[in-house]
Amino acid sequence: MNKTNPGNFFEDFSVGQTILHATPRTLYEGDAALYTALYGSRFAVESSDEFAKLAGYDTSPFDDFLVFHIVFGKTVPDISLNAVANLGYAECRFLKRVYRGDTLSATSEVIGVKENSSGKTGVVYVRSTGTNQNGEIVLQFARWVMVNKRDVSSRAQEPVVPELADHVAAQDLGAACPPVVPEDWDNALAGSSNRWGDYKVGEKIDHVDGMTVEEAEHMLATRLYQNTAKVHFNQFEQGKGRFGRRLIYGGHVISIARSLSFNGLGNAFHISAINGGRHVAPLFADATVFAWSEVKDVAEIPGQNGVGALRLVTYATADTPCAGFPGRADKGYDDGVILELDYWALMPR
Amino acid sequence: MNKTNPGNFFEDFSVGQTILHATPRTLYEGDAALYTALYGSRFAVESSDEFAKLAGYDTSPFDDFLVFHIVFGKTVPDISLNAVANLGYAECRFLKRVYRGDTLSATSEVIGVKENSSGKTGVVYVRSTGTNQNGEIVLQFARWVMVNKRDVSSRAQEPVVPELADHVAAQDLGAACPPVVPEDWDNALAGSSNRWGDYKVGEKIDHVDGMTVEEAEHMLATRLYQNTAKVHFNQFEQGKGRFGRRLIYGGHVISIARSLSFNGLGNAFHISAINGGRHVAPLFADATVFAWSEVKDVAEIPGQNGVGALRLVTYATADTPCAGFPGRADKGYDDGVILELDYWALMPR
Amino acid sequence: MNKTNPGNFFEDFSVGQTILHATPRTLYEGDAALYTALYGSRFAVESSDEFAKLAGYDTSPFDDFLVFHIVFGKTVPDISLNAVANLGYAECRFLKRVYRGDTLSATSEVIGVKENSSGKTGVVYVRSTGTNQNGEIVLQFARWVMVNKRDVSSRAQEPVVPELADHVAAQDLGAACPPVVPEDWDNALAGSSNRWGDYKVGEKIDHVDGMTVEEAEHMLATRLYQNTAKVHFNQFEQGKGRFGRRLIYGGHVISIARSLSFNGLGNAFHISAINGGRHVAPLFADATVFAWSEVKDVAEIPGQNGVGALRLVTYATADTPCAGFPGRADKGYDDGVILELDYWALMPR
Repeated sequence: MNKTNPGNFFEDFSVGQTILHATPRTLYEGDAALYTALYGSRFAVESSDEFAKLAGYDTSPFDDFLVFHIVFGKTVPDISLNAVANLGYAECRFLKRVYRGDTLSATSEVIGVKENSSGKTGVVYVRSTGTNQNGEIVLQFARWVMVNKRDVSSRAQEPVVPELADHVAAQDLGAACPPVVPEDWDNALAGSSNRWGDYKVGEKIDHVDGMTVEEAEHMLATRLYQNTAKVHFNQFEQGKGRFGRRLIYGGHVISIARSLSFNGLGNAFHISAINGGRHVAPLFADATVFAWSEVKDVAEIPGQNGVGALRLVTYATADTPCAGFPGRADKGYDDGVILELDYWALMPR
Repeated sequence: MNKTNPGNFFEDFSVGQTILHATPRTLYEGDAALYTALYGSRFAVESSDEFAKLAGYDTSPFDDFLVFHIVFGKTVPDISLNAVANLGYAECRFLKRVYRGDTLSATSEVIGVKENSSGKTGVVYVRSTGTNQNGEIVLQFARWVMVNKRDVSSRAQEPVVPELADHVAAQDLGAACPPVVPEDWDNALAGSSNRWGDYKVGEKIDHVDGMTVEEAEHMLATRLYQNTAKVHFNQFEQGKGRFGRRLIYGGHVISIARSLSFNGLGNAFHISAINGGRHVAPLFADATVFAWSEVKDVAEIPGQNGVGALRLVTYATADTPCAGFPGRADKGYDDGVILELDYWALMPR
Repeated sequence: MNKTNPGNFFEDFSVGQTILHATPRTLYEGDAALYTALYGSRFAVESSDEFAKLAGYDTSPFDDFLVFHIVFGKTVPDISLNAVANLGYAECRFLKRVYRGDTLSATSEVIGVKENSSGKTGVVYVRSTGTNQNGEIVLQFARWVMVNKRDVSSRAQEPVVPELADHVAAQDLGAACPPVVPEDWDNALAGSSNRWGDYKVGEKIDHVDGMTVEEAEHMLATRLYQNTAKVHFNQFEQGKGRFGRRLIYGGHVISIARSLSFNGLGNAFHISAINGGRHVAPLFADATVFAWSEVKDVAEIPGQNGVGALRLVTYATADTPCAGFPGRADKGYDDGVILELDYWALMPR
């Protein structure tokens, strides 16, 4: 009998099924240092224990996207090893701060299946949950992927398409946010004089800087997340494929864009939710990533007086500076756009 | 007088001589994180403190091969700086678990010398020992290298060739293994439903996945191990040599192969001994490494009822998928084979 | 209003002005491991807690240059984002040991401004100070950079050029040095049998080894230091510039040279001061760095009987082995020289 993991095919998923993913992972100082070296992120809360404590954390927490990548990575061998495409995310909420020494595990529940008309593939919807060593949920998100069928002639499952919210409601934000006291927040140390109240709906911010990506970097990152998707690592195989190149993990693009966004959003210390995300085009090594953001909404968070929420849509591009704010175009996206990410970030008031 | 290390030449070694190697090294979380980022290893014991504790460890231990590379690296400036070739390993035993904060030092004893008929080189056999800060032996192995003579006309030493075991006996395994309770071992979290009893002698497992190697990666790894062998780092010099390329440290190949072997051997949580190894051909950056393993023997370990041992021979290849199990051929090895590693891995029963 | 950091221009600096830099940074095990992986440094004090304690440290301290790069990196967004050139360093003193868990912050005082005759640029002199979480100064240095004017027609400031010492005096050395007891220092573990008394003024040491640099490596390093200088990261932009390449952070060259210098200066365990430094030529990826050092002075340190100081000038080169000691030439420097660094290192007596 085959002892290697063939991944799951469309027929292997059924609504209500729960999958416990392998390889619990304890996060430590080393993960934080690597994350800094990979993206150069400069948000003060994730950089300094002292700053984090003044902001109400026990100590410096892990970057929210590092937590996301770790939990996401665990789901790959079971959910998306045979994925044709990652179609989307929704309802992603960060629910608990993650500190050094915490151990993360992941489970996924299948919440939808829908065979495509071709009969060759289907869309699988899952809700994935990351928990810490105390069983507390630190992160939850829905995603849907297009997966190959094992057997084209197999009978179609009854389609179930879950209703997923367009965006996380403001009242559901802030679960992982500490009790920030705005007067204790030092703008100079944080690197920005702009607080929540300084941002207006419709405002566009070019993050200016660009970061070129190397093969070694995205592979180091993706392995750190123990994400096993084959397309990121195997040039021998990828060289024969459609692009002739290794594809860079979409989460690597997200983290680069987040890091670049410090220049303009320096006080956006915490990602509270991801409303949705689309990897518009693949990224390959040697390209330079740029980013810009639009403020889509501003919201108060019930019961949290020290912080406010900004709904941001951040676009990342490849080899395309963002002074002209490339984004959605009539039929899709402007040239160069590789990522559209819609999320809620928190800022001190 | 020259203050730089010229390394030792064949004439500098004599049987019975003991060498204390430089640079004791304290291992920490950062080393573990880098190891994960470099190889993407997913063995649960090395990934999770919680899982490790349930398996009987105090906390998550360091990967056995990381320990090996650290100890090996220390021996390089004294043993193999002038080596023409690393000829082999034998009798390698992991004797003590290594945890965060442990400091490793290394010594080597010369156990054999044999001049080659050319008069230009000789083979030196050493037994190297890694100890922790309490003086406990964590690792011991024999290796032999071909070393240049300083002076071709120097008189040949009396040849001494040590007898080295073909393989470590089963009764000598398990010294570093904790008291695993099979019922407490969670297959789903570990990522494999196959236990020791599910593997049969002669079984061959293609580990399927491939990993492309970048120059930056192998140099980061080899520096992390403080291995100073010049051939890995200096393209200016290597560019003029036989291959025109930097040679990748053989241990880097071992760690890649071990990481790939998770897919098929996910419960092989601990390397207890290395019986022998051969770097069949050099690896260069940009190649994609694949691997497969054959079960050469299965053994119970006296006094350890929770685990059993698998004697595995893992072959790694460059740019050669392993569905056809490339390995030994009539006169040597099949094309593409770069590593043959014979070792004992432990699995829960 | 623009929310991104445009950096400061010449007109924004005035003598006496103090700037608190953003992003305090807690250093941990992960930073040390990455530093080892990036440079392969083998100095025993920074490698082993046990060795460091015997030398009088509380535990293994961070590498002095890592501390320098972290503090330097913080100053970049405010001081040198619009710099045309880094002109020099002086009066750099390491004043306090930095251990895991320490949080570093940085401030700079403007100590000089002088407009260039072109009217387009000016030289800004700052004294930068790194402090730990207790407010203790760990590092202080002066540097001067050429900065663009915002407006060529703006009126020239009154020029102020500070007097900076040619070198740090011996009596000002040793503030961060523990009370080393020479008898407790193990040469074999340290990797060198040469103590302070074995080095003579005028002695030249070729450090022999070469290290080739990859794009991924210098970017990982520079991001680890949260240094945001654009020229290191953005190939899209740099590709259009004078060199067509990303420039490698000068501090990366310093750390490579320091690491190479282990081979010949293995007991130079601590950098106490940097007298001056010049980045003679830029370094680009794929080049191989070599280094050699000259002993410029030897000095006793008042009140520290266990150690002595060596004033060293280390030259680094690109693709130029250093057996011939390439350095200053009649009109500048010999071909291949990229760095001249004048500093005080301490050794046990």
